[in-house]
Amino acid sequence: MCTDFILPLEDATQAKISARTMDYGNCAASPNVTDLVKVPAGMNFESLAPTHKHSLATGHKWVNTYGFVGTWLHPAATTFEKDMDADPTKLTYNDGLNTAGLSAAVLWLAYSEYEEPGEEAECLEIAHIAGYVLGTCATVAQVREKLDKLTVWAPEIWENLLANHLCVHDANGDSLVLEFTRGNKVYYNNTIGVLTNGPTFDMHATQYYYHYKSMTNKDNNRDRYIQLSEDESGVYHIQQGNGFQFEVLSDGTFGLPGDSTSPSRFVRTAVLKEFVPRTYDNRTGVQYALQILGRIAVCEQEVLTLYNPDGKPEEPRTTYNPTLWQVVRDHSDKILYYSTRLNHNLYSVRLNDLNLDKGSAWGILPMENDQWCTDNTASLDKPVK
Amino acid sequence: MCTDFILPLEDATQAKISARTMDYGNCAASPNVTDLVKVPAGMNFESLAPTHKHSLATGHKWVNTYGFVGTWLHPAATTFEKDMDADPTKLTYNDGLNTAGLSAAVLWLAYSEYEEPGEEAECLEIAHIAGYVLGTCATVAQVREKLDKLTVWAPEIWENLLANHLCVHDANGDSLVLEFTRGNKVYYNNTIGVLTNGPTFDMHATQYYYHYKSMTNKDNNRDRYIQLSEDESGVYHIQQGNGFQFEVLSDGTFGLPGDSTSPSRFVRTAVLKEFVPRTYDNRTGVQYALQILGRIAVCEQEVLTLYNPDGKPEEPRTTYNPTLWQVVRDHSDKILYYSTRLNHNLYSVRLNDLNLDKGSAWGILPMENDQWCTDNTASLDKPVK
Amino acid sequence: MCTDFILPLEDATQAKISARTMDYGNCAASPNVTDLVKVPAGMNFESLAPTHKHSLATGHKWVNTYGFVGTWLHPAATTFEKDMDADPTKLTYNDGLNTAGLSAAVLWLAYSEYEEPGEEAECLEIAHIAGYVLGTCATVAQVREKLDKLTVWAPEIWENLLANHLCVHDANGDSLVLEFTRGNKVYYNNTIGVLTNGPTFDMHATQYYYHYKSMTNKDNNRDRYIQLSEDESGVYHIQQGNGFQFEVLSDGTFGLPGDSTSPSRFVRTAVLKEFVPRTYDNRTGVQYALQILGRIAVCEQEVLTLYNPDGKPEEPRTTYNPTLWQVVRDHSDKILYYSTRLNHNLYSVRLNDLNLDKGSAWGILPMENDQWCTDNTASLDKPVK
Amino acid sequence: MCTDFILPLEDATQAKISARTMDYGNCAASPNVTDLVKVPAGMNFESLAPTHKHSLATGHKWVNTYGFVGTWLHPAATTFEKDMDADPTKLTYNDGLNTAGLSAAVLWLAYSEYEEPGEEAECLEIAHIAGYVLGTCATVAQVREKLDKLTVWAPEIWENLLANHLCVHDANGDSLVLEFTRGNKVYYNNTIGVLTNGPTFDMHATQYYYHYKSMTNKDNNRDRYIQLSEDESGVYHIQQGNGFQFEVLSDGTFGLPGDSTSPSRFVRTAVLKEFVPRTYDNRTGVQYALQILGRIAVCEQEVLTLYNPDGKPEEPRTTYNPTLWQVVRDHSDKILYYSTRLNHNLYSVRLNDLNLDKGSAWGILPMENDQWCTDNTASLDKPVK
Repeated sequence: MCTDFILPLEDATQAKISARTMDYGNCAASPNVTDLVKVPAGMNFESLAPTHKHSLATGHKWVNTYGFVGTWLHPAATTFEKDMDADPTKLTYNDGLNTAGLSAAVLWLAYSEYEEPGEEAECLEIAHIAGYVLGTCATVAQVREKLDKLTVWAPEIWENLLANHLCVHDANGDSLVLEFTRGNKVYYNNTIGVLTNGPTFDMHATQYYYHYKSMTNKDNNRDRYIQLSEDESGVYHIQQGNGFQFEVLSDGTFGLPGDSTSPSRFVRTAVLKEFVPRTYDNRTGVQYALQILGRIAVCEQEVLTLYNPDGKPEEPRTTYNPTLWQVVRDHSDKILYYSTRLNHNLYSVRLNDLNLDKGSAWGILPMENDQWCTDNTASLDKPVK
Repeated sequence: MCTDFILPLEDATQAKISARTMDYGNCAASPNVTDLVKVPAGMNFESLAPTHKHSLATGHKWVNTYGFVGTWLHPAATTFEKDMDADPTKLTYNDGLNTAGLSAAVLWLAYSEYEEPGEEAECLEIAHIAGYVLGTCATVAQVREKLDKLTVWAPEIWENLLANHLCVHDANGDSLVLEFTRGNKVYYNNTIGVLTNGPTFDMHATQYYYHYKSMTNKDNNRDRYIQLSEDESGVYHIQQGNGFQFEVLSDGTFGLPGDSTSPSRFVRTAVLKEFVPRTYDNRTGVQYALQILGRIAVCEQEVLTLYNPDGKPEEPRTTYNPTLWQVVRDHSDKILYYSTRLNHNLYSVRLNDLNLDKGSAWGILPMENDQWCTDNTASLDKPVK
Repeated sequence: MCTDFILPLEDATQAKISARTMDYGNCAASPNVTDLVKVPAGMNFESLAPTHKHSLATGHKWVNTYGFVGTWLHPAATTFEKDMDADPTKLTYNDGLNTAGLSAAVLWLAYSEYEEPGEEAECLEIAHIAGYVLGTCATVAQVREKLDKLTVWAPEIWENLLANHLCVHDANGDSLVLEFTRGNKVYYNNTIGVLTNGPTFDMHATQYYYHYKSMTNKDNNRDRYIQLSEDESGVYHIQQGNGFQFEVLSDGTFGLPGDSTSPSRFVRTAVLKEFVPRTYDNRTGVQYALQILGRIAVCEQEVLTLYNPDGKPEEPRTTYNPTLWQVVRDHSDKILYYSTRLNHNLYSVRLNDLNLDKGSAWGILPMENDQWCTDNTASLDKPVK
Repeated sequence: MCTDFILPLEDATQAKISARTMDYGNCAASPNVTDLVKVPAGMNFESLAPTHKHSLATGHKWVNTYGFVGTWLHPAATTFEKDMDADPTKLTYNDGLNTAGLSAAVLWLAYSEYEEPGEEAECLEIAHIAGYVLGTCATVAQVREKLDKLTVWAPEIWENLLANHLCVHDANGDSLVLEFTRGNKVYYNNTIGVLTNGPTFDMHATQYYYHYKSMTNKDNNRDRYIQLSEDESGVYHIQQGNGFQFEVLSDGTFGLPGDSTSPSRFVRTAVLKEFVPRTYDNRTGVQYALQILGRIAVCEQEVLTLYNPDGKPEEPRTTYNPTLWQVVRDHSDKILYYSTRLNHNLYSVRLNDLNLDKGSAWGILPMENDQWCTDNTASLDKPVK
């Protein structure tokens, strides 16, 4: 489970800001960990290809043109030292932003059926799709052009675990969705600017337009006030009004779904996006994105992850699907902002200040931070005069 | 518009944590400002009483037994210097926590009809109710006992602007709601632990139990997966499954309303509360409260404030009702946490470290903070080895 | 469970038409039976009063001014012969229309708490309230005036079984609701013109105005058409339109609840009522009422009646709460139309053609009819020319 | 707009009963009229093919193996005499039942894109599809086999007016849906047994399983009773219970949509179907189908038909989309039951009693009937003894 969206724009010169939650199975006994990974330009990547059933060969190879910062989610290692032994060209990135201002996000889509693998040199294993796109593409158009030359496949064993679709935003504010259904690539021009999980994008888009496209806080004539008042003879009468004596605010959006299923998160995000003020600077844009993220982020034990085939929860219940972290991406200034499940504070990484040139060292940093609160007691304790 | 709630408890020894949003009319041209005010014990307070129509006399007087930190929301002053000239015994507090671990919150309720004022010495003007309760009460029971000796009234001119109900939580985890309807005090034992705005609490409670009380992520048999697959002859068949191939998560909560009307926020908060893991320490409890706050906080221009009597929006549209700030209150350790509309970072004030003894100076601090993000670029730029 | 409503009017001269479903526990092994009972004017009625705990005395006595036709629902007797032994002045009527064009309907309201019984001569047992009103009142105003002189009570043993509120419409098109809460009569000027079951009327009215009052098929800008079309390069784009290529009709009413709970039936009826064309003659008015009745009538085993105290269904499941019958009342021409659970055909009784004068004989007729379908096979089999 | 469904079965020997509403644009000034048409076996049918742009040639030809009764909806002719001049082999049938117990129904689907016409002899114009299927097929399997040999097309001028999908049920209780999307036939094994209008069937099926499949009146723990009671000290407490003091019935189905959009009618029908008692004889099965039809039939002016391209209603508003008529089909005994918009009474045509053999005369009968009510006044007026 995850949600991704891009803020609406007033005009093309404005900062492009997108955001995303990572909602993922979390088990207290064995929590997942996410690292930020800095990948400079010019590294040698190799994907995989199947040779014969169950064995793997080298697939597509590339050198990344663009440096990027990617997120790497993995089960908790004993120490962070161990993570530092990782090979950044082999990791599965599920999100990231590159030096061209393009982001790639991988979200769960259980409906995925990948392509039949082609020539070995054209095989891109699904686990490498975000890393490939972040390393080689500057625009949505390039993503399509490049991926069309490859076949995206998954080893049988990963087909269910890596059932994914891809969500891309670029520095022009363009957005693309790529899904794999019935063994084919299906591209969507994501003009709604939202992606969640299943079912496929066309179903979300259709449902959104059918029922929710016109939900609005503007010009609605639903915001009313109702009171039953007693007349002198003791009979109650219904009175209604509005204007100053407002009570029902936002009723134009009555019907907006509030649960955490994928269709509900899609619709909720798409409607809330429309309410974002169209002019914003960097700071306010980031905060508007955080306001929406709050409304779609998943609470700690709101969503159970594991069910038995009979539909009953797996016992004991240890695994839930909360929002582990959320990112806000400034595609114009190339900044990645983030906060985490148990730390509301906002952190950032500025790509323009990172050394991402070819030949630079790679880097790694745990997403978690110790500092979760700033104490202002002393400031308040100061005598007024 | 506002929402207040208290986290559910595993047992009575656990930390008691409550939270609240302040959703209030905000106009870019003339933004509201909130200060935190430190009020030490032993100050002399006076409320107001009506003498004859439209003129005011001194009402109930008291000296506060408990020091407290209150929030004071007011139109932007030219400078913070000016706020420092305020008299802390005259302010209208809309939220706060006292040294006994009791909180008082005032939320909008358009349905309010206050009491007929009694003797001057027993008159408490509604604007002073939170300050009175914070200064004089340690428990929910005391709140009722003390307020029952007073008449709570409003000058005609304020009746619509100060249409409020009161929400109290104490260090035992008890919660009380006080509403004024048809000229009477009506107390509710708030075992749901949630309060929003209109209609009155009984209607929210009834609607919640009618339709939403059993919404659950537990034991639901709704989490399913559906796919249409083509057979060899080209006909599509409906397949469903669940277990590993999960796709629909959280469908047990399908129907949870997602809009920002008062009834929808009430229900959403009450249902999400139930999913909070019952054991938490201070930090995780605060973060769980922040997760729920995110789901009920109101986005920047989601809710228009001003409507004409004909129900059409007042033009130009300048005033919206976003969440200006949110507080999380630790009633056990007596800490007030807060973040603001355009600053996701969390700040705190620890009452145990404040000098709130009788005779101490009062204090004031703007709620806004400059620091909204911590830059981690350098840490990521460090070579791995 | 039941629903009652009155059609909206264009002007005061128009026929006044109301309607009602009787949704009641039905068990295949022991089905309920309803008889129509003709009660002429001038009969001697007696209600009951409590003497001391558990024993009964004669209560209020009256002679009915108006003749009426009432419905009497009771467990199946062995034969209709037995019903003919009934005493029409002792029956519990749950619906009916009188010669003044006033209807009285009794609907379940679990929240009811009746009055403390007064003087014996002023005691009206709740079981007799519809019979009393039908026999003595011509207008809504009279209903209130007369009932205010009596105390309406229930023997302890009946308090749960006869938990009812009263719904009255008169020949002027006025509507009144009477509920008993906290031991008092509470009258509502039912300008919505709908009544179902719990909670109390004020809660239904408030919820209706809060969320549904402005649901409309008029001027909505939600009726749209959405299609994803593939461009030449194989990317899907979202297209929308409307006008001729309509597909989404009635989306202005999206959010209208479709289940059979009491609040949902209330809202659905109130919204559908608004769509009734304001001009109708007798036949079309009756058919418009039947259209709405269809939308709120309860299907055969849609609603289980009996639950154990733990909330689980009583096993075996034998008792459901379907719509047993529905009536449409023409208050102007004084005609009672009806159809039943397993007979869609419409039957009528015309009060103007019944002998309801003082001294006339009473009458009784089973509501069920054998004829449920008219065979047109022969007409279609006729050669065309 | 239309809805079609088949009742669920206990076992294969049971009577197969399906039903359907015809919701269609109706204008008071120029109402539509529907005739029942009896078509004996052995008549010569011809469909159409395009020759070159805009001109038509003879398409596929066939002789009907099965006699059938079809419905023919057309603008009001001046007299029924004129209808008798019609040629039954040229009509556009939108519903019908044949002597093999197979029904064919044509419902609006704005998403339809028909096939590229093939050889003239293989061209079936969409207007003739129901007549073709009724005349030539006995089972769902045959429908597919026969239609696969033809290309189904529409003249450009009709493409929007005849945007349709096909819904078939046979005497075995099997159901098939055929849609035309992107120029291809798409068949669905309709195991849900419901069809309405757009979007395409896969979207309805997915949405139904996602959110509504487990809505149930069985084993739900939502049916509760809630009351606020005042304690001696005047504080209100929330009490809840259930069991005997039931008030909330059917809450397991809370969330069931009640409006008349196509997705809402689909879901409502599919859920209500599940509540039908699994054993029924002919009469009760027909009545259960009528109960569901009532819940999905569209009220007189609930749904506006004509919108301008800007989404605003066409003025003056003359055209609405009510349910013009409804049929219930007994596939086992081969009986067609029907009632109409302003006539609640049920009429029937029994195919086994019609002369449908080859060489018999065709027949025609207006669907409307004069008799809409049976007067029982005299029966009630009879003295009891």
